Parts: sequence; C-alpha cells; structure tokens
Amino acid sequence: MRSEAFQSWAHAHQVRIESALERILPESSAMPARLHEAMRYAVLAGGKRVRPLLALASGEIVDADAEKVMLAACSVELIHAYSLVHDDLPAMDDDVLRRGKPTCHVEYDEATALLVGDSLQSLAFETLSSPGLSGKRQVEMVRLLAKASGSRGMAGGQAMDLENVGKSLDLPELESMHIRKTGELIRASILLGAHCGEMEEEGLAKLDHYAKSIGLAFQVIDDVLDAESSTATLGKTAGKDQKDGKPTYVSLMGVRQAKRMADDLYDSAISALGCFGGKAERLRQMADFVVKRQF
Amino acid sequence: MRSEAFQSWAHAHQVRIESALERILPESSAMPARLHEAMRYAVLAGGKRVRPLLALASGEIVDADAEKVMLAACSVELIHAYSLVHDDLPAMDDDVLRRGKPTCHVEYDEATALLVGDSLQSLAFETLSSPGLSGKRQVEMVRLLAKASGSRGMAGGQAMDLENVGKSLDLPELESMHIRKTGELIRASILLGAHCGEMEEEGLAKLDHYAKSIGLAFQVIDDVLDAESSTATLGKTAGKDQKDGKPTYVSLMGVRQAKRMADDLYDSAISALGCFGGKAERLRQMADFVVKRQF
Repeated sequence: MRSEAFQSWAHAHQVRIESALERILPESSAMPARLHEAMRYAVLAGGKRVRPLLALASGEIVDADAEKVMLAACSVELIHAYSLVHDDLPAMDDDVLRRGKPTCHVEYDEATALLVGDSLQSLAFETLSSPGLSGKRQVEMVRLLAKASGSRGMAGGQAMDLENVGKSLDLPELESMHIRKTGELIRASILLGAHCGEMEEEGLAKLDHYAKSIGLAFQVIDDVLDAESSTATLGKTAGKDQKDGKPTYVSLMGVRQAKRMADDLYDSAISALGCFGGKAERLRQMADFVVKRQF
Repeated sequence: MRSEAFQSWAHAHQVRIESALERILPESSAMPARLHEAMRYAVLAGGKRVRPLLALASGEIVDADAEKVMLAACSVELIHAYSLVHDDLPAMDDDVLRRGKPTCHVEYDEATALLVGDSLQSLAFETLSSPGLSGKRQVEMVRLLAKASGSRGMAGGQAMDLENVGKSLDLPELESMHIRKTGELIRASILLGAHCGEMEEEGLAKLDHYAKSIGLAFQVIDDVLDAESSTATLGKTAGKDQKDGKPTYVSLMGVRQAKRMADDLYDSAISALGCFGGKAERLRQMADFVVKRQF
C-alpha cells in the first residue's frame, strides 16, 4: 500500500517540479510570445510527473544535490512533454484531449504545436547541459537522454507503434516496441538521477534492471487503464487504442493476465533494489505508484 | 573570386561530410527500418553543406582535430536537416520539392516526416555528446547548439516567420526574425568549430562578429535568389516567399539594395577576420561562397 508519507512526498515534489519547469521555460512575454505561451501551456498543465519523480527518487540513493537532480528530472519531463504534443497531432494520434484540456494544436494551431515540440526538445538538452548541473558525467548524461529520445529510443518506438496499426503482433514484438516507446525514457530518468551522484557499475546495473521492469509495467498498466477507464477519469480519450486497432497487452492477453504481468514486473523491480537498502525506499514506493495507479 | 583551390577543398569536404553523416545515421536495416530509411533520405540528399563547411573552416583557425570538428560539423547539419523536414510539412510551408526531390513527407508520409525531424534533432545531440568529441568545452558546445536550435533560436525564428505572413514588417523586425531563423545556427557552426580547439575570448568575439554578418548575408542572398532564380536552378519552389505574402529583404528594399546590403555584410565579416591572419583564409573563402553563390 502507498503510505501517507509517500503521498505527501510525491505531492510536495510534484509542486517543486512544476515550479522548476516554470523557471526553466521562457516567459510568455519573451519573443516569440505565442510560441512561448504555447510551450508553457503544453508543459505546465499538471500531470503525474512520473519521470521526474523517478529521477528524484533515484537521486536519493546517491544523496544527489537537490538542484542538480531537479535539472536532470526536468530535462526528461521536457522530452516527455514534447512527445505528447507531437503524438497528439492530426498526422499522428489525432487526439483533441490531454489531461482534460484541449491538446496543444487544438488550443493553438498545428504549426505552433510542431514548433512547441521541437523547442521543448532543444530546451531539454539546454537544461541538461546547463552550468547548474556540472559534473564529470554531464556529457554522458546528455548522450543517455539523446539516445533514449531518438530513433532507437522513444521516437523509434512511436514509429513502430504507427506501423503496427491493424497488424497482429506477438508478445516479443509488442514488448520491443514499448521498450523503445516508453521504456527508454523511464530508464533515462532513473539513470540520470543516479548520475547526479556517485554509483558503481554494479549498482547501475541493478538500477537498470529496476528501470526496465518498471518501464514495461508502466506500459502494461497504461493499456489496462485505457481499456477499463472512462475518458473523465483518464483525462484523455479512453478506449482509443482499441478503436484505432492498435495491439495492446490487453488485446493480446486480456485484462487479467496483463495485470498479472504488471505484478510480476513489479516484484522483479523491487527485488533488484535489495542492494540499496533503505536508501531505495522512495524508488520502491515509486514502483508501487506506477503499478497500482488508477489513472 | 572563388579560387580553384577553394572549390576543390569545398568539394572534397562535402564528400567527407556526406560520408561522416552516412556513418552517424543508423543503417536502414536497423529497426524501425522505415524511419531510418526516411532519416537517411532526408539527410543524404546532398546540399551545399554550408554549415558543416563553416565549422570545418573555423576549426582550421585553431588547428582542431579533424575527427572532432567533423562530429561537431555533422551535429549542426543534423539540426539543419531536421528543420527542413519539419518546415516542409503541410502545417508549415507545405512544400513538395527539396533539392530537386520530393520532400520527406511526400516520399514517405506526414507522421514519418514528423518523427524523422524529431529523431534527427536527438541524433544531433547524441553526436555532439559522443566520446569521440571529448574535451573540456563539450558541455558548453551542447548548450550552444541547444540554445541556437530552440525557441530563442531557430525554432523561434520559424515561429516568427509564420506569424509574419501577410504582415508588413520593418527592417529591424525582419532582421530580428532572420537572426533567429538562420543566423543562430550559422553562428553555432562557426563557434563550435572554434571550440574544438583553443581560442581566447577576444578571438571568439571577432569570430562571433564574422558569424553574425555572414548569417544575415546568407539570408539576404536567399531572398534575392528566391526572387530571381528558377525552380530548376534552385532545386526548390522559386518565388514562393513572394507568393506566400512573406516579407523579404527584396520586398522591403528591392533586389539592388538587398545585394548591396549583402556586400556590406560581407565586407564587415572579412574585416573581423583580420586578427587571425592566414589561418582564416578558408573562412574568408566561405564568406565569398555564401555571398556570391548562385543557388
């Protein structure tokens, strides 16, 4: 069960993340004003902030400097936010609702939404390379995020997802797509948090196992929620994957089996954290947060 | 006049740049194959490679390591290539022809073109943060390219360009847009080249002046060529800016004055190079290449 202490930690840090993002984003008054306003609209619309929370939780293991790990956390969230803006475009998922509000291209226009996504990606790398984050691993961190975002990571997973519409996939194919589409960026969040302090290779490998399990569990649960929830609860159009003829864990194995798979991945993630003792408590709670969430 | 020696240098290095880009881009056979094929289509379609040539020419001043400066040069070209793919999309300039070939979204589809651009931007930062480029300024280089690409740089200039359609601008407003839209990335090319070696602040300031002048001259000449050339010579749809009601240097001051402005900027750029003596010969020739080009 999620503890009250975790809930209050998560809430307090969602507020801190929001305010850090607000500082990182250019002011609406700065030229070009409409683009900057649209960037703020797309990023500051709330959301669970799962990726930055994972980065912060991972930073706790290495006693990372709070300001440094916050910059790393925000850089991942900016990549995530850009991907949502582009995914919602008519040429992609053509969605009009996100977190209960009109999507960026509906609120503004398609050209602006395109540039919002492009600019948020640049801002992610600007943030990750800022002097406030200086450390011997900073270049490596940039490279990690770039690989996780690109054609062999998130964008590649998105491409595979589009190609798969109407196709029947087997489980390994579906998994291969999701590892890229959502897994790589979740993995980057967790490793970037750890890179803000000192961690040996062995610890990083354990963390990597945790990250991969949680990343996949996150997607499995997403499919379950898409199949089971209402649009109002979800804050985005529910049942859309099924309507679009996209293969999901639910369409492949049914809701019950999919939930079981998520539970197994959760167990595997938790056991990988054993070597970190009490320092990984927040990451354990985050696993719980990801797998047991309702929205 | 452009010397034969310069022409042979430029040609040889265009070939080297092409082959470096070919190595940096994922193979078409790597999954997702269609995305990777489209990325290669968008980048390996030739082109003048002005930005990477500027980086290489700037690297000559500081005797930069050839492989390092090539990676920096390619990272800028990848940003440029991504911007062309996105600019050509129907929601933006809606262009069907680029370098005499169908644009990326025409040859593939809109969703793929969107992801091609997104992935090329990630690849640019992956390239700039690669171990092959290690040096004490590498993080600063990433930050320079990120700022030049984002909402206060190239993407911001593109947003201003879209907002300006059908509006009457004065010269400072037009200049402010172009400094962002093309100037910042050209400046980044030149500074990144210099950062691959050692250069004092004073030298960097001179180089910056050269870069800003050349960047603006490049755009002025672009407007002149768009007004004067045929589609066949240009390899893209000619006269398009005028047709789209976009303000240009030509529409504001006429062809003769625009050419004169480009010449003045050229003179200013050349005089900024004085302190570098013979080492800046290639950058002088590049100024010539940019201002005196026919396509």
